[in-house]
Amino acid sequence: MAGGCVYSREDGYGDDAGNGDGDGGDGVSTSSQWKEKQQEEREKPTRPCTDFDMAYFNFYSHVGIHEEMIKDRIRTESYRNAIFQHQNYIAGKVVVDVGCGTGILSIFCAQAGARRVYAVEASDIAVQANKIVKANNLSDKVIVLHGRVEDVEIDEEVDVIVSEWMGYILLYESMLGSVIIARDRWLKPGGLILPSNATLYMALVTHPDRYSGSVDFWRNVYGIDMSAMLPLAKQSAFGEPSVESITAENVLTLPQVGME
Amino acid sequence: MAGGCVYSREDGYGDDAGNGDGDGGDGVSTSSQWKEKQQEEREKPTRPCTDFDMAYFNFYSHVGIHEEMIKDRIRTESYRNAIFQHQNYIAGKVVVDVGCGTGILSIFCAQAGARRVYAVEASDIAVQANKIVKANNLSDKVIVLHGRVEDVEIDEEVDVIVSEWMGYILLYESMLGSVIIARDRWLKPGGLILPSNATLYMALVTHPDRYSGSVDFWRNVYGIDMSAMLPLAKQSAFGEPSVESITAENVLTLPQVGME
Repeated sequence: MAGGCVYSREDGYGDDAGNGDGDGGDGVSTSSQWKEKQQEEREKPTRPCTDFDMAYFNFYSHVGIHEEMIKDRIRTESYRNAIFQHQNYIAGKVVVDVGCGTGILSIFCAQAGARRVYAVEASDIAVQANKIVKANNLSDKVIVLHGRVEDVEIDEEVDVIVSEWMGYILLYESMLGSVIIARDRWLKPGGLILPSNATLYMALVTHPDRYSGSVDFWRNVYGIDMSAMLPLAKQSAFGEPSVESITAENVLTLPQVGME
Repeated sequence: MAGGCVYSREDGYGDDAGNGDGDGGDGVSTSSQWKEKQQEEREKPTRPCTDFDMAYFNFYSHVGIHEEMIKDRIRTESYRNAIFQHQNYIAGKVVVDVGCGTGILSIFCAQAGARRVYAVEASDIAVQANKIVKANNLSDKVIVLHGRVEDVEIDEEVDVIVSEWMGYILLYESMLGSVIIARDRWLKPGGLILPSNATLYMALVTHPDRYSGSVDFWRNVYGIDMSAMLPLAKQSAFGEPSVESITAENVLTLPQVGME
């Protein structure tokens, strides 16, 4: 494997990649093309796996994160609906799932008729994803690759990329870069990316309760003047992103498109 | 200053330590005693400031932590009550506040009549603590020392140590060690430590809703068998400490003393 990421482990179960069942469908590279391409790939400098990457991937090996994401029915059902709405396109095709986590989107794709799904996951949750695939009798279709998209090898072009790359305020998880790497490495010209576009709306809001609770609070703390905390408290309370539900009357402007 | 911790900054405002107002009260070392003692101190090996220390102290420079701790009225008022219940002892005495944070306990001690309070704080919140002390016209009594208890210098023995060292499940913040260092460095024989003893009660509890939400959940996730997640989910949900309120009927045994 290219690169030196400690997460690019050889666990055995990723070895199926490239040992397709020989059905010779459209887009499968021949063995010699494959070797040439791999040679080129090896010569390209791969961004090495940093401490930040390791912390990032380690975070996603925690079960609670996946529980929270999957329990968000609006999120998970939107992905499922998108996959099944594109069932005609996906059926019989090759898919790569970038950052598959527990493998749920890969399994949806298999259920939608994908011929093969490469489920790429750098964090250790890949071990569970592989077990889940087996438990659902999908090992012949879903191949879990434990490593970064930069490092794993897929020896055919793919028709579809699915990825749950969206984070808070759309871009927070910084995973879009991995989707782009996957696209450049494997996607056929004209292939499908799910999702492929997004719109970020922004609006000015006010939050007086929070302001008084976190900022004005310091003016009188058990009778002590702690106003010296105000600059830091303002910075801390409103200088960092915050994810919370607010009521409509706190929205001061109509939402505007911030980014498309 | 002994030690090499990056948090032992010379901000000017800590320089008052040792330049007492010359009232010559009991326990103030003379200048030559002081220098001898400092020489000895320098020869003792001080535990160096590690990356862990830096992350730990950096955490306490975040305002939100202090807001949360101070807003816990049971916590803050217990400390205030303890200090004022010992007002007869504290009045006219020298106090050290180990990990003073915003300086609230130091100010309570000054309000209770302490002659001088050394407020020791390694995190950058010390800068705010010093401003708060000034804003409350207590600069003549409360001296903020920005550094670890291992590193700062106090040139007199102290009568009282106050410290909010208790964390989750009593010991979680691992700050007790700093109180012990302060005691060994500065406390007069027979001096007062607030608090000086604690009792940790433990009881068996059950939490069926949490179990089903975080563990059983994986048995059927949008129709997919994710039981492979169960071992990890059990470990994650119940292998780590959790701080939450539960109802009385979930407590299965009478509380037992776990530690005193």
